Amino acid sequence: MKTIYVVGIGTGSAEHVTIAAIDALNRADVLFIPDKGASKSDLADVRRNIIARHVLKPEPRQIGYAVPRRDAQHIDYGQGVADWHRALADIYAMLICDVPENGAGAFLVWGDPGLYDSTLRILAHVTEPIRVEVIPGITAVQALTAAHGIALNRIGEPVLITPGRKLGAITTDTVVMLDGQMAFRDADPKLEIFWGAYLGTPDQILIAGRLGAVCETIINTRILARERHGWIMDTYLLRQPE
Amino acid sequence: MKTIYVVGIGTGSAEHVTIAAIDALNRADVLFIPDKGASKSDLADVRRNIIARHVLKPEPRQIGYAVPRRDAQHIDYGQGVADWHRALADIYAMLICDVPENGAGAFLVWGDPGLYDSTLRILAHVTEPIRVEVIPGITAVQALTAAHGIALNRIGEPVLITPGRKLGAITTDTVVMLDGQMAFRDADPKLEIFWGAYLGTPDQILIAGRLGAVCETIINTRILARERHGWIMDTYLLRQPE
Repeated sequence: MKTIYVVGIGTGSAEHVTIAAIDALNRADVLFIPDKGASKSDLADVRRNIIARHVLKPEPRQIGYAVPRRDAQHIDYGQGVADWHRALADIYAMLICDVPENGAGAFLVWGDPGLYDSTLRILAHVTEPIRVEVIPGITAVQALTAAHGIALNRIGEPVLITPGRKLGAITTDTVVMLDGQMAFRDADPKLEIFWGAYLGTPDQILIAGRLGAVCETIINTRILARERHGWIMDTYLLRQPE
Repeated sequence: MKTIYVVGIGTGSAEHVTIAAIDALNRADVLFIPDKGASKSDLADVRRNIIARHVLKPEPRQIGYAVPRRDAQHIDYGQGVADWHRALADIYAMLICDVPENGAGAFLVWGDPGLYDSTLRILAHVTEPIRVEVIPGITAVQALTAAHGIALNRIGEPVLITPGRKLGAITTDTVVMLDGQMAFRDADPKLEIFWGAYLGTPDQILIAGRLGAVCETIINTRILARERHGWIMDTYLLRQPE
């Protein structure tokens, strides 16, 4: 049976990679590199940089593949995602054909394969029997709190992690991810926000303070940074001040 | 000024360590090793193993320190924790005296320094001016989902991370940590549970299924494992079946 490593590579720094991730990348016969288009070529560069630095084979076999775009306008969000996953599953099935029998392939996943990533769900649609092994990676949540030098949780208290589109009234300390709509604009201005973009990369930007005081700065910084890079990934923690 | 690295080392596997963590441990002049008593000597062994494998200095300077016990019977949970942090802050202040001027010391933190760990809060009580740098690490949450080969979140849905003592009715997919009381016993038996103990170590134990079907197995496994090792650290995800 073929083994597929789903390897968390952290959030943008080649230093976030774990020893377990490096070992898996070195055991793999084939490395799969997604191409998300020119605007996100920085992300592909991080993957290539990790391979160049840490994979010891002189010429590891790399297979690039174009990632289809999800229909973000789909009337049913869940169905739009499901359709997109099926299209990707067909691509994955083709990629896995290139793994030698009893060999291994590896997907390099931004952050951790368990947190707002689809690779495991897509692999579940692949009909060829495969053994899947997951290597955990540093998430944007940890990169955010480390960069701000803060703990994620208050003593003995819970923390909610949510996509921006599900952000409601803040009754628990909340980390927001995948928030293209800047949902923080509608939150209570008395909250504290710890915001970060391009976490772990040399382009990392951090802003923290009372939401009412820094909201405009974050909005403007975000718009400018997105224009300059062609893409942005940002994350933030919202909580009542102590 | 002295630099204090607060280094996340992952949850029990020397393979969870990141390149950034290894770099920080190699830059530090002094490594601080907590001693939590004989029953938790496995944990100290993991730290020593990481240092032995990854720190290249022939004899890195290590300072052990005894960790005082928190008064778990304190009538006011928050005050009990605050008292314990102040006692630890006095110990940290002494340890930091041993760091050379303009040099660096490193605390090796289980998991990630941002998630249910006190090191950053305790360092905030130290009066000597220090520069604190946080290196993110793999948390038990990622180790749990990786070991079970599942995603933490459902598509586009939030996830709550909570200590056992704050576990209420499950309205959101929930990860429970620090649960000595086995709070899952009071949860809806129709929920799915993904449970793991000693995650990342050779002693790792995984159990998953409908809570009603596996609850007794988890309780018995947990009691026996705790007796055998003298300690246990476990984590679990509770959610409605799909």
